[in-house]
Amino acid sequence: MRRVAVAGVGLIPVKEYWDRSLQSLFAEAALKALKDAGTDKVDSVYVANMSGSFMQDQINMGALVTDSLGRPGLPAVRVEAGAASGGVAFHEAVKAVASGYSECVLVGGAEKMSDVLPEAATTALVMSEEQEYTAYTGVTQAGLSAMLHRLYLDLYAEPAQVGMMAVKGHDHSVGCKHAQYPFRMSIDRAMDSPMEADPIHMMECSGVGDGAAAMVLVPAADSGVEVVGSAVATDCCSLAIRRDPLIFESVRRAAEKAYSMAGVKPDDIDLAEVHDDFTINGILSLEALGLAGWGEATKLVAGNATDKDGKIPTNTFGGLKARGHPLGATGLYQVAEVALQLRGAAGDHQVPGAEVGLAQSMGGMASVSAVNILRRFGV
Amino acid sequence: MRRVAVAGVGLIPVKEYWDRSLQSLFAEAALKALKDAGTDKVDSVYVANMSGSFMQDQINMGALVTDSLGRPGLPAVRVEAGAASGGVAFHEAVKAVASGYSECVLVGGAEKMSDVLPEAATTALVMSEEQEYTAYTGVTQAGLSAMLHRLYLDLYAEPAQVGMMAVKGHDHSVGCKHAQYPFRMSIDRAMDSPMEADPIHMMECSGVGDGAAAMVLVPAADSGVEVVGSAVATDCCSLAIRRDPLIFESVRRAAEKAYSMAGVKPDDIDLAEVHDDFTINGILSLEALGLAGWGEATKLVAGNATDKDGKIPTNTFGGLKARGHPLGATGLYQVAEVALQLRGAAGDHQVPGAEVGLAQSMGGMASVSAVNILRRFGV
Repeated sequence: MRRVAVAGVGLIPVKEYWDRSLQSLFAEAALKALKDAGTDKVDSVYVANMSGSFMQDQINMGALVTDSLGRPGLPAVRVEAGAASGGVAFHEAVKAVASGYSECVLVGGAEKMSDVLPEAATTALVMSEEQEYTAYTGVTQAGLSAMLHRLYLDLYAEPAQVGMMAVKGHDHSVGCKHAQYPFRMSIDRAMDSPMEADPIHMMECSGVGDGAAAMVLVPAADSGVEVVGSAVATDCCSLAIRRDPLIFESVRRAAEKAYSMAGVKPDDIDLAEVHDDFTINGILSLEALGLAGWGEATKLVAGNATDKDGKIPTNTFGGLKARGHPLGATGLYQVAEVALQLRGAAGDHQVPGAEVGLAQSMGGMASVSAVNILRRFGV
Repeated sequence: MRRVAVAGVGLIPVKEYWDRSLQSLFAEAALKALKDAGTDKVDSVYVANMSGSFMQDQINMGALVTDSLGRPGLPAVRVEAGAASGGVAFHEAVKAVASGYSECVLVGGAEKMSDVLPEAATTALVMSEEQEYTAYTGVTQAGLSAMLHRLYLDLYAEPAQVGMMAVKGHDHSVGCKHAQYPFRMSIDRAMDSPMEADPIHMMECSGVGDGAAAMVLVPAADSGVEVVGSAVATDCCSLAIRRDPLIFESVRRAAEKAYSMAGVKPDDIDLAEVHDDFTINGILSLEALGLAGWGEATKLVAGNATDKDGKIPTNTFGGLKARGHPLGATGLYQVAEVALQLRGAAGDHQVPGAEVGLAQSMGGMASVSAVNILRRFGV
């Protein structure tokens, strides 16, 4: 199996692009990544998109994006795994290079949520749940997350302790050029905001935004950023039948496999980008990744441990809450941010001496997760 | 790069399953494939589905199908490439084994079209076209195919000659247990059927059906059916800007690459399963695959060349027209049928002495195509 490296990164700001098409967002991020990599020798393309089928009536994105790049002809594959689409597409792109099928892969994600009413985003999100069992009841992703949040509050923490996940994300986003909401937010503002789904406050939820992120993958050479672990795992779709709904088994399994591939332990991780679509899910992700003990992630987030000079810097550009969460693109923003950190190209967000970083994405209520681990090498 | 073999095949009849869920169709085909392979050691899953997002409001199919198999936990990836989804998912599954990431992959496709009104199928299909340019005009896939059909009639053939593609498919389907329409159809019946989109008659169009097909892939050992070539390619989405709209460039490119990987020429192919969603597209696919000269595929189909004892047996279980075309599952039916032929397990449909077979799928107006070539080995 060939070693795989990240040769280029391209991000566009997460915001509302009312006058741009889905494929034009993809193309902008992709061309940035290609320029960054200094190559035009791409021989295959992967595209992550979650809800184009619903928001733009657009499927067959593979052909669409190669066309929009002016490169019709290239092999192209669309990968969809709910909000984990970006992380899973990255995993597939890694395999394409590792297998020898491709020498230079462009992997990008794009999503455009501004085109639809906010309630349509809620509908799109719950399409990730089993329609004939869970979605059928009328529950939303916020509602499902609220059940976990309630249980977590009963067992482990106070509301403001969980809410600190969002506060920290906003702290880290300040100055980030690609973040949607790069401003500080106090815990009081979060706790005083209206209830989205009790006990989740509005300011504990990621927002609605458009965005695209892309990377170029090649066989690893002498130095750079290598993909040392990449894994995907699933869990049963219904929260009701999980042994412990506060344990994101798919995250735990994917992490275990990725750690094993990378030959590292949670303690070796220098920074993490985790899936905080709602504060509680960021907290539970930190625990399932083994970066905090069960029921203990709020302690980590409350101190300075997740800051850039802390023990385990987390969501160093703001996370889903503050950088933004353009669904299928999100997983690629996460991996790209890790790559920038390991290159030492994270500017004011730089984690000093970062060597190993992790990105974790989840779809549905963590019914599917991707964990990708990157390492700086040869420097 | 490791060699990859097909260890098991599972098909369910294409028909209307009013009382079954999408995931239950997948599970039935998958369990058949696993039984056929004699293994329960699957370590990852690929699922092809085109229109669940529209027809069942269901995305995140990866998690859904591992759950329905009673195997939550397994890595799972949904691949979508319009009506080529099955062929592209197979390509990805091949890479998973070739790369060493997986030792035993289950790849399956499922689609359920009966749930929606027939006009909704038309809407679903045109989602494969660029929404902001082509679909925007109100054209349908039948309409786009009709333009090619008209041009082909102007240049190369009579209506009944193109229509023979459907007649031959029906001939081959007789006795096929998984075919939706396993009966003979005369050319008169085809030519007397109402116009779907002039000059395409209703009986030249594939129908609406539900189905699921699955296969198990493993590293190749001593004998069996090997995947010797697997490629995906795209083309510009709009027919209007193609140099010659009668040349399916994506099919030609994918075929060229797959032939090269397999070390074979079109003349070496013992049987082909091609994408005849409309008769004209089957004809143009035969030409783009190099199995007929440009403008000459109707001559092939008119004689006995595409019969099971002909020069290039084609659509040996009926093709999309007669076996059925459950969208995202179709590409996997095609590859599975090739595998059955190479195993000598095709019963009354057996192509004598078949050693090398090809399956070709396309999405949109061949804006994306997959070509997979299989070869019998060690016997």
